Amino acid sequence: MRPAESSSTTPASPSRFDVVVVGGGVIGLSVAWRAAARGLSVAVVDPAPGSGASHAAAGMLAPVSEVTYTEEPLLGLGLTSLARWPAFAAELARESGQELDLRREGTLDVAFGADDLAALGELGAFMEKLGLPVERLTGRECRRLEPMLAPSVRGGLLAPDDAWVDPRRVTRALRRALAGRGVPVLRERAAEILVAGDTVTGVRLASSPGTTADVRPAFSGALDTAADARPSPDTAADVRPAPGPDTAARVVNAGCVVLAAGAWAGGLAGVPEGVLPPVRPVKGQIMRLRSAVPVLSRCVRGTVHGSPVYLVPRGDGELVVGATQEELGFDTRITAGGLWELLRDARELVPGVTELEVADVVAGLRPGTPDNLPLIGPTGLPGLHLATGHHRSGVLLAPLTADLVVDGLTGAADPGHPCSPSRFEDRA
Amino acid sequence: MRPAESSSTTPASPSRFDVVVVGGGVIGLSVAWRAAARGLSVAVVDPAPGSGASHAAAGMLAPVSEVTYTEEPLLGLGLTSLARWPAFAAELARESGQELDLRREGTLDVAFGADDLAALGELGAFMEKLGLPVERLTGRECRRLEPMLAPSVRGGLLAPDDAWVDPRRVTRALRRALAGRGVPVLRERAAEILVAGDTVTGVRLASSPGTTADVRPAFSGALDTAADARPSPDTAADVRPAPGPDTAARVVNAGCVVLAAGAWAGGLAGVPEGVLPPVRPVKGQIMRLRSAVPVLSRCVRGTVHGSPVYLVPRGDGELVVGATQEELGFDTRITAGGLWELLRDARELVPGVTELEVADVVAGLRPGTPDNLPLIGPTGLPGLHLATGHHRSGVLLAPLTADLVVDGLTGAADPGHPCSPSRFEDRA
Repeated sequence: MRPAESSSTTPASPSRFDVVVVGGGVIGLSVAWRAAARGLSVAVVDPAPGSGASHAAAGMLAPVSEVTYTEEPLLGLGLTSLARWPAFAAELARESGQELDLRREGTLDVAFGADDLAALGELGAFMEKLGLPVERLTGRECRRLEPMLAPSVRGGLLAPDDAWVDPRRVTRALRRALAGRGVPVLRERAAEILVAGDTVTGVRLASSPGTTADVRPAFSGALDTAADARPSPDTAADVRPAPGPDTAARVVNAGCVVLAAGAWAGGLAGVPEGVLPPVRPVKGQIMRLRSAVPVLSRCVRGTVHGSPVYLVPRGDGELVVGATQEELGFDTRITAGGLWELLRDARELVPGVTELEVADVVAGLRPGTPDNLPLIGPTGLPGLHLATGHHRSGVLLAPLTADLVVDGLTGAADPGHPCSPSRFEDRA
Repeated sequence: MRPAESSSTTPASPSRFDVVVVGGGVIGLSVAWRAAARGLSVAVVDPAPGSGASHAAAGMLAPVSEVTYTEEPLLGLGLTSLARWPAFAAELARESGQELDLRREGTLDVAFGADDLAALGELGAFMEKLGLPVERLTGRECRRLEPMLAPSVRGGLLAPDDAWVDPRRVTRALRRALAGRGVPVLRERAAEILVAGDTVTGVRLASSPGTTADVRPAFSGALDTAADARPSPDTAADVRPAPGPDTAARVVNAGCVVLAAGAWAGGLAGVPEGVLPPVRPVKGQIMRLRSAVPVLSRCVRGTVHGSPVYLVPRGDGELVVGATQEELGFDTRITAGGLWELLRDARELVPGVTELEVADVVAGLRPGTPDNLPLIGPTGLPGLHLATGHHRSGVLLAPLTADLVVDGLTGAADPGHPCSPSRFEDRA
């Protein structure tokens, strides 16, 4: 089954690619698109592209309002990537002919009780110390910005530079852009990374395509048949350009493999023990509500009963409510408790959501890492690159990740980068 | 378009039936089945049989625990129909080859606070006065029967003779039984009752089949593809026997029409003003939870924050949570508020539901009447019979309704029956 050994990168051909990307979420597709734009021959392998964590993501591009006291390196990555989003989105929209709904009206973080308000005040001071743009608002000022907010909101912090995007539009646009560039997106499951000598030579496909268990599309409502809903196997975005690789042989030969399989990246066969990325699945349940008129004009977040909740408005009147954070392994069930929390918290922030229609609820698995930073770039196994471990920041960090991975593929990686996979390798 | 006038009942033929039933829910299908068993030639007209209020019903057969102070006539009907359920179910199971999951372990009505407990005590005294079988239980006794009940349950009333059934199994079994008897179930929308002189002659079908808006199948989960899930247009139950009526002519000729269209029964064209049934839609949202092990061994109900909630266990470990009651016209949206109420109330009764998977949520429209009693039997328009207005009791009252309607079709109706439509006719 193994292909002949080959350690140098050769021009694109039906039988051998410069790069095969394992994983067709927002990260894998972004990497593939940017690599193709750099002139590399690329293939993507995913049994259900765009149906994983990307499908369950709210799409907040909010490094400022998501800053936490111990994670300043993540803030830096987020700010860098946010700065690249407008150009990334504009180029992607132009190439795909698809609007992305990138919006830049900021995030409003609100507080209810006195304790909440004090904590928010401290966070504001921390943000100011970091030089981040932030405005402190009274409860009345919050409601002036967002009239649907609960009367009990006591105050808030506005992060005016935060943005958001619709991740389902992004993955769809990326698939269209890849189709336009002749990059095949193979609806196959990668079974094993192939290695000859000490170098990666490609990917063996599973004997049957199979499906991911990442997102269980429970609760896909009757109205969820719109174009931006659950990915369909029949979308034009998946036109496979000819000539494609010979999948009958069940092997995709490539000079490099980029492992962008999210929470599953830690379990792919063929990757040596010391190089396997230490990712774990962090479950998130998210709900989409439908409204005839827009309910909010910017992202709103708050802490309800100790758990953070956010509401993200879409251009078509939809309101995304997210998200639970649960450490339950590879479990993607929609639970009564998870759904109840989302509904309770959303009602607390914006009581009027009670009247809205529930369009769908999905669960996804985020790839968490021990230090909450992603794993991006070349590994100790020549030819194997990582692009995973983005936890809650996959959509935000997609443009930066794509650039970093392409740097690594073209020999320009920075080995001292905080996202370098080397920080977890060969610890024993 | 009108068929030739004909006022006498003729033998079954492809072009004329003794009876056409408008509405293929549990009521219409039961009527059709019993009428066919009595030797009448029957057809049913429904664009989506079994997908309306029957699909959203929990299936409680609980006349005792549902008794209210002002509705003793309804109690009598319920007790009579409950007594007919075992034979009805046995015969239907035999004829359809389909188990119905009829269970008879009773209903446990529980109380939380002192006020609740006092109200339940009074209800118990009322039941005893009516001679109904009921047992008063302490909180501890309740939890001994149902260990998953909340620790805060203070006491309860057990109605040991109450029963329940799976309505989706019932409509499926009825469709199979009808197919076995050669009764066509036409997937068509009835547009108009046809009248010649002062007598009903049949039904004109809509120019295109259309669909009902009764149940919006939002939230049909991935696991909802089991056989007992949302009715499919392709089930064997809908094998249409040949020769069927000539639907190309868009008319079904019949000696009698039974209007069993639930909440829509009040709006059918062709029915004279004074005879139109005074039904209104009462929306109910219901949720199915999935459990690997049974959570309850009988129906449990209670009053949470002033609204009644019930939990109905299914044989396969499912738990049905119902139901909201909303007067919003023909609105079948699943709303954030409705879903939140169901989840809140279910958690209050049985905290462990938090861990269960949400299998689906559906909304249906019950046909309410001014006096909360159904409308069953012949009307002032010769040939037009009603079987609607069952509100929350459609499944319970199906066997009795079928018998009463067949009595009316065969000339044996009791004009003084409390369900007689005459009580609302020609009031002006």
